[in-house]
Amino acid sequence: MNPFFNNHGPFSIFEIIKSLKINLQSTHKDEVKDINDLLNANVNDITFFHSKKYKDLANKTKASYCITTSALKNDLPRNCVPLIVDNVLVSTSIVTEKFYPDAVNDNFDYTGQDIDKTKFKGKVKYGKNVLIGENVSIGSNCLIGHNTIIEKNVIIGNNCSIGSNSIIRNTLVGNNIKILDNCVIGKHGFGFFPNNTKNIRYPHIGIVQINDNCEIGCGATIDRGSMSNTIIGKNTFLDNQIHVAHNVKIGENTIIAGQVGIAGSSVLGKNVKIGGQTGISGHLKIGDNVEIAGGSGVIKDIPDNSKVMGYPAKNIRQFLRDNK
Amino acid sequence: MNPFFNNHGPFSIFEIIKSLKINLQSTHKDEVKDINDLLNANVNDITFFHSKKYKDLANKTKASYCITTSALKNDLPRNCVPLIVDNVLVSTSIVTEKFYPDAVNDNFDYTGQDIDKTKFKGKVKYGKNVLIGENVSIGSNCLIGHNTIIEKNVIIGNNCSIGSNSIIRNTLVGNNIKILDNCVIGKHGFGFFPNNTKNIRYPHIGIVQINDNCEIGCGATIDRGSMSNTIIGKNTFLDNQIHVAHNVKIGENTIIAGQVGIAGSSVLGKNVKIGGQTGISGHLKIGDNVEIAGGSGVIKDIPDNSKVMGYPAKNIRQFLRDNK
Amino acid sequence: MNPFFNNHGPFSIFEIIKSLKINLQSTHKDEVKDINDLLNANVNDITFFHSKKYKDLANKTKASYCITTSALKNDLPRNCVPLIVDNVLVSTSIVTEKFYPDAVNDNFDYTGQDIDKTKFKGKVKYGKNVLIGENVSIGSNCLIGHNTIIEKNVIIGNNCSIGSNSIIRNTLVGNNIKILDNCVIGKHGFGFFPNNTKNIRYPHIGIVQINDNCEIGCGATIDRGSMSNTIIGKNTFLDNQIHVAHNVKIGENTIIAGQVGIAGSSVLGKNVKIGGQTGISGHLKIGDNVEIAGGSGVIKDIPDNSKVMGYPAKNIRQFLRDNK
Repeated sequence: MNPFFNNHGPFSIFEIIKSLKINLQSTHKDEVKDINDLLNANVNDITFFHSKKYKDLANKTKASYCITTSALKNDLPRNCVPLIVDNVLVSTSIVTEKFYPDAVNDNFDYTGQDIDKTKFKGKVKYGKNVLIGENVSIGSNCLIGHNTIIEKNVIIGNNCSIGSNSIIRNTLVGNNIKILDNCVIGKHGFGFFPNNTKNIRYPHIGIVQINDNCEIGCGATIDRGSMSNTIIGKNTFLDNQIHVAHNVKIGENTIIAGQVGIAGSSVLGKNVKIGGQTGISGHLKIGDNVEIAGGSGVIKDIPDNSKVMGYPAKNIRQFLRDNK
Repeated sequence: MNPFFNNHGPFSIFEIIKSLKINLQSTHKDEVKDINDLLNANVNDITFFHSKKYKDLANKTKASYCITTSALKNDLPRNCVPLIVDNVLVSTSIVTEKFYPDAVNDNFDYTGQDIDKTKFKGKVKYGKNVLIGENVSIGSNCLIGHNTIIEKNVIIGNNCSIGSNSIIRNTLVGNNIKILDNCVIGKHGFGFFPNNTKNIRYPHIGIVQINDNCEIGCGATIDRGSMSNTIIGKNTFLDNQIHVAHNVKIGENTIIAGQVGIAGSSVLGKNVKIGGQTGISGHLKIGDNVEIAGGSGVIKDIPDNSKVMGYPAKNIRQFLRDNK
Repeated sequence: MNPFFNNHGPFSIFEIIKSLKINLQSTHKDEVKDINDLLNANVNDITFFHSKKYKDLANKTKASYCITTSALKNDLPRNCVPLIVDNVLVSTSIVTEKFYPDAVNDNFDYTGQDIDKTKFKGKVKYGKNVLIGENVSIGSNCLIGHNTIIEKNVIIGNNCSIGSNSIIRNTLVGNNIKILDNCVIGKHGFGFFPNNTKNIRYPHIGIVQINDNCEIGCGATIDRGSMSNTIIGKNTFLDNQIHVAHNVKIGENTIIAGQVGIAGSSVLGKNVKIGGQTGISGHLKIGDNVEIAGGSGVIKDIPDNSKVMGYPAKNIRQFLRDNK
């Protein structure tokens, strides 16, 4: 789940409580190993629970500690100690930053050096002015275009062709993948807590994962996940100027036309077809084999095998009938 | 029509039949010179015919051979030998790739070298880190900005100003043209045959043709044509972040505002005005002097002199009345 | 108002009249110092007045001369001499170009030189291949990413982080600002007079002003103003692939999601929230605390504290009711 960001833990629960400025008369001496969501947290991890919506997951979490509210704490299992705070997400952000301080800011990668001076010289076919950061690996038979920057924390498989002027960081690129020109892949998402003097960015400890046989068009921006990963399924093709926000998961064999935007945390099935300029709101579930006509605005879940169109998107036959 | 892609033909019809894995008891010894569409194919060329829609063109084609289906073959003239296949487009792609193997993949141009080492030194005013590929010509009084890559197969006229960080390939640029920063012009379009393990890209043997006095805004992506060319008419101005797909033809004196997207093979007339973020579906015909309000989604042909708005776009007065 | 463009005036009114090719039997010997809009012009400046809409401003202008029409001239105060022309905007463009000849064309900045050879070496933390133009200043504790070009006329405050592959010119960047990768900031807007042989660009003498604590996402295009400035208010955050046209003013603490486009001269209040892919037409006023749902198309003014959705955007509850 987290191959790239360095976990600065463990921290004692005492230290974590102090950073949250809460009063908890704790006799616990436990060390907390990591922070994770309700589903993925293990014993000795800390998690967070901020909405009734996740009650079922909360009930089964293995985490030893949970940042939550008084109203929600009773849904946690007995082996999980609640840490009661005013704002769960802000507190979670503080703790996440403690474990992963490098995942908050995305300044340019100062470790990038000329590929001619790296171990990839002679192994990769590359253009002029290509830079490679730390913790990068590149498989066999790969091409990297002019002025492209492979920043730190990137693993590229075999037979990949990366275009020119692209920037990639914190990303797993599979095999037989084409990433065209002017892309920015693996930056943090548009996630922060609004604040009237200075918004507070929260860490993005997820990565981008692009599976085998994909093609990513020119000018794409694919943001890495905050707590989970942003995933592009196998053999999925993206046209030019597409934006994929943090935590989005796209299934395999999906085809997405130009200028489409997918907001944070939405999950798309496999064999989905999306026409140009369509927008998909955040936190939605789009089923398998769904077809969405170009220009649509999707604001609710779409079941498997549906064909939709419009803003808000609805059954395509109904839309065309309503708009004769 | 095809100044840039090298025709690897001629091939014997026997060899072509073999690559299509069809059984045709042919006594023909003919050499096939080129592949082209129904209208433009000449004697000794091969063409393709996949839809009733093109019946009239099929009837008059000069091609000696035609990839088609049993159902369609009777619409071909007597001098044209039908090659019957299951999937006309996939078979056409196989034959096109045979003639034009360089038109399938758009890897970065490895032939690009520092402009300082080319014949353009002292003849063109250019920035730092400018690269020039093979088969490039540049007229008098031109400017090329920093980090811009003129890849192979580009002809630029006189008095052109190219911005920084742009990439151009397989493109005819006329005179007095401005191409601003971060553009990608002349890449293959978003054209492939979906396939559940690995989509199959078909060749794009068309080019991009930008006529005199045009301006192309920052961040544009203009894809080259597959079988025909992508054309931007004289004195047409494009704002920032516009996407023009393969085979699109835009008339002269047209004005297109920011973030507009035009899908494949649509044809726009002259003196057209398009507001920001409008999307135009593929294979449409937009007439002369048409005005399309910003944000519209055009899904059918628009006759000359119309003013439209909405999604789907309709008469602007009707739209505004319906949406009071 | 105009820290970057060099005023080539003053010019005698006689010379200005000659460049406009009008007949005005003038005995005036006055020198004209500058050109400005009705509100900001001072004594000895020239201004322009082209629409009844600005009657109240015309009535109070301090300008000594005004380019206008016969129909409008009587709304000017007695101390302001009308210069009667056929097309006010074209004539204004001619005079503006006389004062500010450098503000018409945005060719790449030939003065850009390697940052290693500038005074910023050792003072700024920067990547490879960074270029700096003339008249640039950079505060303390700043980062500038690889391949980024700070063209001429840029002032950057303290604690700013600029990404890679970005281009900035004619811009005031405040403190604590992040500008991510692949942005183009400060280019002229999409402003010109259509003309059937060759459109005529008018000068853009405004700048871009980005106030403290802002974040500008990847792939943004923010055009500078024509006569006034393009302004991004304090602590305003922009997601990826956003287009902000010339003269737009965005208030503080505003949040704008991905792929939004804002057309020329619109003014947004503070604490505005805009969902992804929304388009806002030109010359509109969006009030404080307005929320605009993603995918909306805003074509009229929106009062303070409204929540809107749809195309055209209307009250969000009404929209959702109408579109059940």
